[in-house]
Amino acid sequence: MDFQLAIIGGGPAGYTAAERAGEKGISVVLFEKSSLGGVCLNEGCIPTKTLLYSAKVFDTVRNASKYAVAAGQHEVNLPKVISRKAKVVRKLVLGIKSRLAERHVEIVTGEARIIDKNTVECNGEIYRCQSMILATGSETVVPPIPGIESVAYWTHRDALECKELPQSLVIVGGGVIGMEFASFFNSLGVQVTVVEMMDEILRGIDREIAEMLRADYAKRGVRFLLQAKVTGLQADESGNMTVSYESQEGEGAVSAQKMLLSVGRRPVTKGFGLEALGLELTERGRIKVDSHMETSVAGVYACGDLNGVSLLAHTAVREAEVAVRHIMGESDAMSYRAIPSVVYTNPEVASVGKDEETLRAEGVAYRAIKLPMAYSGRFVAENEGVNGVCKVLVDEEDRLLGLHMLGNPSSELIVLAGMMIEDGRRLSELKRYVFPHPTVGEIFREL
Amino acid sequence: MDFQLAIIGGGPAGYTAAERAGEKGISVVLFEKSSLGGVCLNEGCIPTKTLLYSAKVFDTVRNASKYAVAAGQHEVNLPKVISRKAKVVRKLVLGIKSRLAERHVEIVTGEARIIDKNTVECNGEIYRCQSMILATGSETVVPPIPGIESVAYWTHRDALECKELPQSLVIVGGGVIGMEFASFFNSLGVQVTVVEMMDEILRGIDREIAEMLRADYAKRGVRFLLQAKVTGLQADESGNMTVSYESQEGEGAVSAQKMLLSVGRRPVTKGFGLEALGLELTERGRIKVDSHMETSVAGVYACGDLNGVSLLAHTAVREAEVAVRHIMGESDAMSYRAIPSVVYTNPEVASVGKDEETLRAEGVAYRAIKLPMAYSGRFVAENEGVNGVCKVLVDEEDRLLGLHMLGNPSSELIVLAGMMIEDGRRLSELKRYVFPHPTVGEIFREL
Repeated sequence: MDFQLAIIGGGPAGYTAAERAGEKGISVVLFEKSSLGGVCLNEGCIPTKTLLYSAKVFDTVRNASKYAVAAGQHEVNLPKVISRKAKVVRKLVLGIKSRLAERHVEIVTGEARIIDKNTVECNGEIYRCQSMILATGSETVVPPIPGIESVAYWTHRDALECKELPQSLVIVGGGVIGMEFASFFNSLGVQVTVVEMMDEILRGIDREIAEMLRADYAKRGVRFLLQAKVTGLQADESGNMTVSYESQEGEGAVSAQKMLLSVGRRPVTKGFGLEALGLELTERGRIKVDSHMETSVAGVYACGDLNGVSLLAHTAVREAEVAVRHIMGESDAMSYRAIPSVVYTNPEVASVGKDEETLRAEGVAYRAIKLPMAYSGRFVAENEGVNGVCKVLVDEEDRLLGLHMLGNPSSELIVLAGMMIEDGRRLSELKRYVFPHPTVGEIFREL
Repeated sequence: MDFQLAIIGGGPAGYTAAERAGEKGISVVLFEKSSLGGVCLNEGCIPTKTLLYSAKVFDTVRNASKYAVAAGQHEVNLPKVISRKAKVVRKLVLGIKSRLAERHVEIVTGEARIIDKNTVECNGEIYRCQSMILATGSETVVPPIPGIESVAYWTHRDALECKELPQSLVIVGGGVIGMEFASFFNSLGVQVTVVEMMDEILRGIDREIAEMLRADYAKRGVRFLLQAKVTGLQADESGNMTVSYESQEGEGAVSAQKMLLSVGRRPVTKGFGLEALGLELTERGRIKVDSHMETSVAGVYACGDLNGVSLLAHTAVREAEVAVRHIMGESDAMSYRAIPSVVYTNPEVASVGKDEETLRAEGVAYRAIKLPMAYSGRFVAENEGVNGVCKVLVDEEDRLLGLHMLGNPSSELIVLAGMMIEDGRRLSELKRYVFPHPTVGEIFREL
């Protein structure tokens, strides 16, 4: 069978590329070995946000009296949370399927294997293509910790299917995934311990904000062990886990009913015949791509987590669009200047652009302007006893370099700062626009 | 006493002007006859949002089972809602006071009276100024309905102080204020009837969206009487109100324990010596201002509701900034192209730019693109059984003319569309930016 475009992997990069290419009217075949939507939709972004929203509703119920609402006895029905999540995922997967069908994308379920840059084999069939987008995504890193092969640890996948709350949970890795699950299980009353190797959680997020968030969760009962390198894992007969670690205070151990491993993700480069292409790699061993996402082999593109640049679904979406536009001969280029990061804790953290540490390391002169979120009347009206912060970093000409926020709904606000950064605009230009009053977003005008 | 700038009125226009002018280091005197913050902060935007947030928390508790959270008996403590509102207002008023104090703004409490363009009298003192910003705001319109003088109707001010829920409430006027209170009292279990003279609620908001919102509230038990002209008001001995009206079906009457009047607001032009200035007026009888908010008398500016252009706090804020910049000799000009409108019902409605009716009336060629909010994965995860819509209107060159949304949190998203409209940008340009996933805002990229 002949197609203009073959896409390997049906996650955000793959399905976006298929949608966009299908819209342009070219013939597309998309290979997916398990579920359309990829990790993001089936066991990542969307499922976690569904769970976290139930936790947020529970937080709201528990704190309702702050807003003069009495709520009586309240509890979470975890099996129902999990089945609702499955329903949300099904609905969204169906949405993608129908969008791809409308655009006449051929979806092939099976393990694709690259024969050469114009040929893919799947389920015994041969598919010919003019261009190829590789979008096989990433997988959980399982570090070689002594004992890891003999204990039944959780990955995010298991945590998302958990139908009975453990009494206690130890999370190895205090990054975004770790913190989102810490938030979820803490809200639901589980005793959570986070073990992090670095000296602060949420690497890549503004340190001051990471510290504020950590202090907030510590107050709510989450225990944090920083600069703690995990040295061993053990389980007793009843399945309880013990995590041994070394920290500045010496050796220690923490036990819990369950353990979640969330130390990172890495590109999936094996199992689909990538070797056949002989792609050039970067110094770090990643697939080398140019600003159109094209690899060293003309007509072959690598998008999403596979290329190892950003490992975020929204980056994948944009990369896929850039690749398709290049295939169509339209001018576009990928920019990583303004990729937002969001941590869906409660309150949320959102960041875009550079942080202070990076700017200092790069020797860039900058000015930081910081406001408490309580500067926004709406924030005060809707966040009783909660504070947050909005910090902008500008260069000597007042141009935005980075913006970092703690407080709801910063996930929805951050894109605006990203647009300013992407376009190299000045903070003062924001003041030309009329922000509706009262909104939390108004804080941008006050910076 | 001599000042460079005198400001009459301490609402959003007045306090913003004072803050901005104070920042520039000029001497400012601000006259306020009652409470700093004006109607917006003391009895408008902020108090209503505080009440509405308690109602939203109550909605969340009541609907918690949709997200697998069981909540027991739940009820709202209205006196506490009202006292929390007072606390929020106090906190924000203090914030403004301290910002003005930091900027050395002289605040005079009392009724100011203009003597001439350089002289204001207040509390028996004479204040001399080089420039003057008039920002006296607006007041509730009380229409000459037969019987109105003899019944104890509510304005928004009374509704905000209501410490005991009426069983039933009739709201005369289905505009933004009317619908926000309809939402509040409906959430709290009051039988609400909205009487609207026009053939749809929320004049100025996209009709299709207004209709969807109305249908939604009708399902929740709010009764709507459209094209119903109120012809008389009566109260019985126990204070129950009867509103008589004429509609296409003939004459009718609706009774309720309380009645809220919300038919509109008009500029406050009397009581502060405005006559002394002899300002030029527009055909509609409003104070004529140019694009710097300067009146026909050089050095005298009219900002906010007083000039009758937009009657929104955020317009007032921007107008005040433009006036101060003009006084300082900086270049800037007021633009009304992209003033957002928000209705803080649950779900929220937000609009910016032109709507279809206006474009049709103006004979502008446009294209409408409409998506259900369920296109956003996050919206689906957080809005069980709720839908909404996002509709964009573009011209023949793909430039944004208007954007209209129903669904949370559209209040916080609409500014981004406003920025695009203000700058005359194309819809396709939005796709160059990376929106964090999953967010509701991503829907803008899908249009």
